[in-house]
Amino acid sequence: MSEILYVRHGRLHYFVRETLKRLRMPAMHASKVGDVLVAANLAGIEGEGVSRLPYFASKISSGLINSNANIRLTHQEDATACLDGDNGMGHLVASRSMEIAIALAKQHGVSAVSSRNSNDFGMAGYYARLALEDQMLGLVASNATPTMVPTYGKDPLLGENPLAIAIPTTEDLAPFVLDIAMTATSRHQLEDAIRHDDRIEKGLALNANGFSTDDPKVALENLRLLPLGSHPKTGSHKGYGLALAIQILCDVVASGATTQGAQRDVAGVGHFFIAIRLRAFGPWIKFRNKIKELIDHLKTSPSTGAPQIYYPGEAEFDIEQERRATGIPLDFKTQSELSGLAKQLDIKDSWEHLIEGRK
Amino acid sequence: MSEILYVRHGRLHYFVRETLKRLRMPAMHASKVGDVLVAANLAGIEGEGVSRLPYFASKISSGLINSNANIRLTHQEDATACLDGDNGMGHLVASRSMEIAIALAKQHGVSAVSSRNSNDFGMAGYYARLALEDQMLGLVASNATPTMVPTYGKDPLLGENPLAIAIPTTEDLAPFVLDIAMTATSRHQLEDAIRHDDRIEKGLALNANGFSTDDPKVALENLRLLPLGSHPKTGSHKGYGLALAIQILCDVVASGATTQGAQRDVAGVGHFFIAIRLRAFGPWIKFRNKIKELIDHLKTSPSTGAPQIYYPGEAEFDIEQERRATGIPLDFKTQSELSGLAKQLDIKDSWEHLIEGRK
Repeated sequence: MSEILYVRHGRLHYFVRETLKRLRMPAMHASKVGDVLVAANLAGIEGEGVSRLPYFASKISSGLINSNANIRLTHQEDATACLDGDNGMGHLVASRSMEIAIALAKQHGVSAVSSRNSNDFGMAGYYARLALEDQMLGLVASNATPTMVPTYGKDPLLGENPLAIAIPTTEDLAPFVLDIAMTATSRHQLEDAIRHDDRIEKGLALNANGFSTDDPKVALENLRLLPLGSHPKTGSHKGYGLALAIQILCDVVASGATTQGAQRDVAGVGHFFIAIRLRAFGPWIKFRNKIKELIDHLKTSPSTGAPQIYYPGEAEFDIEQERRATGIPLDFKTQSELSGLAKQLDIKDSWEHLIEGRK
Repeated sequence: MSEILYVRHGRLHYFVRETLKRLRMPAMHASKVGDVLVAANLAGIEGEGVSRLPYFASKISSGLINSNANIRLTHQEDATACLDGDNGMGHLVASRSMEIAIALAKQHGVSAVSSRNSNDFGMAGYYARLALEDQMLGLVASNATPTMVPTYGKDPLLGENPLAIAIPTTEDLAPFVLDIAMTATSRHQLEDAIRHDDRIEKGLALNANGFSTDDPKVALENLRLLPLGSHPKTGSHKGYGLALAIQILCDVVASGATTQGAQRDVAGVGHFFIAIRLRAFGPWIKFRNKIKELIDHLKTSPSTGAPQIYYPGEAEFDIEQERRATGIPLDFKTQSELSGLAKQLDIKDSWEHLIEGRK
């Protein structure tokens, strides 16, 4: 096995699908999860891509995630809706929720959708991006396992609580896709730093004694991440405050969704979605011209420390174009974990199919 | 004149109203602006309170702000609306826009409203809070004069672009009110630091040579503020990305509002508003219990560097209770500027009325 293996994204999608089908997930659902995981790999966000498949497979095998979830609309009023994820894959719950948000925003101009009893949905930007082709802004948020130490706190009480906002631009430009954790760093960035043997900045994470550490291994072991803003005097209350607003929407609001029948009490992950039909605010042509003007202004202004100023989603868009052509790189660890998984599930032919298609 | 003068908030409101009426603002409008400015003073946010009155008065006198603006709905579809502020006071445009957002969310569960041709609206949290009594979440954003240097940029290209989110809690708790600039610091915080003769943290603002400064005077002269997150390695792309999303909503989207008749081309300030009716997502009693539980959990968890963990809006709520009883403090500079303004506008009796009611 070479150090880095480049595989075609279509074959990678097939591998994910076959793996999940083997775990008794309906084919349509398995395919949807594949869409999200492979999209993360295409965008260069390895930590939310197929490297997570063994983790999800083990959660499904041990019954902690329901592979045959009945994701259902529990309540709907005019431009709002509530879903129950039935403890299914977050990727499915979020895709379904955003589809409903888009349908409602088509009718009403704006919509808000909550979902509960879900799980980690991976790349938040994926769902926000679903709104783009309908000329909508998509906003997605989720709560997560507690890793964030609030301003003046000692222990992790909130999650990274990701927020994604996608906004269409023009055909010749990358769409605006902001996809950020409310922590100053994230678990995936720490894993990257360890892989590259880098130190990390102070102001990202605490060690066991509550002091800022520059060692990513210590940071990952402790998982006491600081909010965006790092310290009280540099605005950590802002990152903490945003994370708390997301917590209220995805935990307090989403879990309160009116249900038919018995109230389940799974302390699951919740999400929140907003879609805004931009054409309700003016002619599309004017929007396109003005956003192009704004982006041009940013990109032609003087820069320092980089060849130019970037906007959110631009780098990921470029990586995606490249990887669609040259393939998706799988590092050695991911290769061995995926081939191990294939062996364990007795789908070695799917693995062979994947690596035969190497580039 | 003593160093600090404590005045009653009702009399301060009267003073603002009389000042603006003298500048030919209709009484109803003058009163609304007074509501917002005095609310900022009550909450302890001096920099957005009556200290700004001389600035607005001079803008009105020189014709740069329209004191008799015809703020009008230019377009409305289902759950969305667009307003044109007619270059009026931002406080009026934002109050009106949020009222419309609330009315639309009553019908549709969620709403989105844009406004253009507006001006600096002061305390963003004020408008978000308007949603609270209808058991709604209120979200408010605005663009502003460029002061933020984007990640990898050299010059200020975006504004502080404030964002406020208000969420109701229970009667015995302060409401959740997050009111933050997307810059790591703000002009008002720099002014505070100068007043108190403090240095500032590195990572907030740049000097003329593009290096981080710890001198608030240098920072205020240059007005090259860093995004929340400060540096690329500590997440400045997140503060910058959020500011850019706000810029798109408040500039690109809001300015594109469909207008009847001629298209005005004032490069004004724009705002964006979202209201979400929380009862559309579940029973109110359950929401209240769960949010109380979350807040209790935060406030009873171990803290360091402060007696406890706070949540957004809590400190301002406490200050307001106190100031309603003991009065609003006006520092010497504000006193002399306001009395000078009263003299200039020949409303010295309003000033006398204010200081007679001192506490």
